[in-house]
Amino acid sequence: MDSKLLSGKIVAQSVYRNIKKQIKNLNEKNITPGLAVILVGKRSDSELYVRIKQKKCKELFINSFLYKFENNVEEEEIIKQIELLNNDQNVHGILIQLPLPNHLDEYNILNKVAIEKDVDGFHSLNFGNLAINSNPLYVPCTPEGCLEMLNYYNIDLEGKHVVLVGCSKVVGLPAALMSLHKEATVSICHIKTQNIKNITRMADILIVACGVPHLVKNDWVKDGVIIIDVGINRMDDLTKKRGYRLVGDVDFDDVYDKVKYITPVPGGVGPMTVAMLMKHCIQYIVENIEEQCVQNLNGGNYIESI
Amino acid sequence: MDSKLLSGKIVAQSVYRNIKKQIKNLNEKNITPGLAVILVGKRSDSELYVRIKQKKCKELFINSFLYKFENNVEEEEIIKQIELLNNDQNVHGILIQLPLPNHLDEYNILNKVAIEKDVDGFHSLNFGNLAINSNPLYVPCTPEGCLEMLNYYNIDLEGKHVVLVGCSKVVGLPAALMSLHKEATVSICHIKTQNIKNITRMADILIVACGVPHLVKNDWVKDGVIIIDVGINRMDDLTKKRGYRLVGDVDFDDVYDKVKYITPVPGGVGPMTVAMLMKHCIQYIVENIEEQCVQNLNGGNYIESI
Repeated sequence: MDSKLLSGKIVAQSVYRNIKKQIKNLNEKNITPGLAVILVGKRSDSELYVRIKQKKCKELFINSFLYKFENNVEEEEIIKQIELLNNDQNVHGILIQLPLPNHLDEYNILNKVAIEKDVDGFHSLNFGNLAINSNPLYVPCTPEGCLEMLNYYNIDLEGKHVVLVGCSKVVGLPAALMSLHKEATVSICHIKTQNIKNITRMADILIVACGVPHLVKNDWVKDGVIIIDVGINRMDDLTKKRGYRLVGDVDFDDVYDKVKYITPVPGGVGPMTVAMLMKHCIQYIVENIEEQCVQNLNGGNYIESI
Repeated sequence: MDSKLLSGKIVAQSVYRNIKKQIKNLNEKNITPGLAVILVGKRSDSELYVRIKQKKCKELFINSFLYKFENNVEEEEIIKQIELLNNDQNVHGILIQLPLPNHLDEYNILNKVAIEKDVDGFHSLNFGNLAINSNPLYVPCTPEGCLEMLNYYNIDLEGKHVVLVGCSKVVGLPAALMSLHKEATVSICHIKTQNIKNITRMADILIVACGVPHLVKNDWVKDGVIIIDVGINRMDDLTKKRGYRLVGDVDFDDVYDKVKYITPVPGGVGPMTVAMLMKHCIQYIVENIEEQCVQNLNGGNYIESI
């Protein structure tokens, strides 16, 4: 295998092996983990992501409950559903598929999820505990997946200069905070950053999550850099049957000669995001097993409401 | 006046003028703002800071209630007091003077303060809302004071490279988050940072809060840098009556020829921290004035318990 590649597939497999053991233990105690997903509207990318998560749940024998709402749903209706799920002992994780339509208050909705079921880590309390490094119950899946990969490949962050390109709440910002708590020096760049290459060229570890295909080129990085490419973008490619191929935010071929390690797209961060979500679905019950004595009766059926 | 100086005293005066007007308005509605301070043990620095805050409260006609506890107090006792204060309508802000003795769980104690009285902004929910830029009720006073000064002097952060030296929860980290939300590029350095000068020399705005006297020298900065020096350290000086003088984390004289602006120590960030705290003491009642219809009967007396 290419020794420069950090394979999300391989690391995710190792995560799943562990999850399967834990789920077996839970089953012996008559507990079946359950993930509820709230999907609003008909964005094809959101629908795809939800299908991927459901498929993985099925593979792992995690119950998956899908609640679909029309694009013009009232906020109150979603919140009512969240409150039901908060109190549903068959549901151990609640995921609100983002983005939500503009008329909905994303902040308000995310903060209605019970913090012990907030498997995406977007509740302000979990995010605050991440920020101050005080044992958040959950942290966002994608940046956690990035750090888990680095950890798997024995790449220590202490004293390293980690540079983020992109500072979203979903990836860049939490990745910055997690890197800081691993005692990395951290620089956060974004669309307003001037002379960005002067900063990215300092990176020992470059985490790119800005959604611009092939933004990062050879002259953006120094020799020996480690690159985590979070981007997943479609690029026209008529040699492919479907007319496009998936590429990252980094121009893989262009930077390749300089990198020490790099994640491929696909097969890099993508599989790790799903693996971290699955880990979160069982994490709280595993850690609080003695309180989970009630049999979970629902058997993997998918519920679709309105 | 020295045109290179960013004077915390001057900016704080402007903040106080505004606060006084608002307090007058509140008084007309029979409301007197109240700040409760919890002080554990007998650290002389903590006692000094509390005295400074109490004195400023008195000047502004904000009631100030001091609750002193012995160094070996049980956590439960402090939490009981916080709960009383959470429900006390004469108290609009609750401040836990840090640091606490080691046997106390700082996180647990800070998170017992009602978020609408969390005038230091250390509750995880307020900190989380700061992190994701979702209208925290309060943010930590010192970094807010730093940004307030920059704002007063019309120094825009958008696209600027803000470099932090120090990443504490009290200053460096929240200052980084606030700068990011003002669309600055942000780098966070700390004790584990390698080749730190290579990073600090890139700073358009350098915020230093690491508690090491005169750490930052001339060769740490570029020409035209703006420096916010948060440090307050004692340095032996036998020419002074008290045997020491106060100095910052920046070697003021050494960097002076290079800087565009710099905060002095004392008279820089220090006064701003207190001003922001006073602003916080009235902020919630000013913003929720219609609900504050009950007369506050306590008249500025200091209560000391155990």
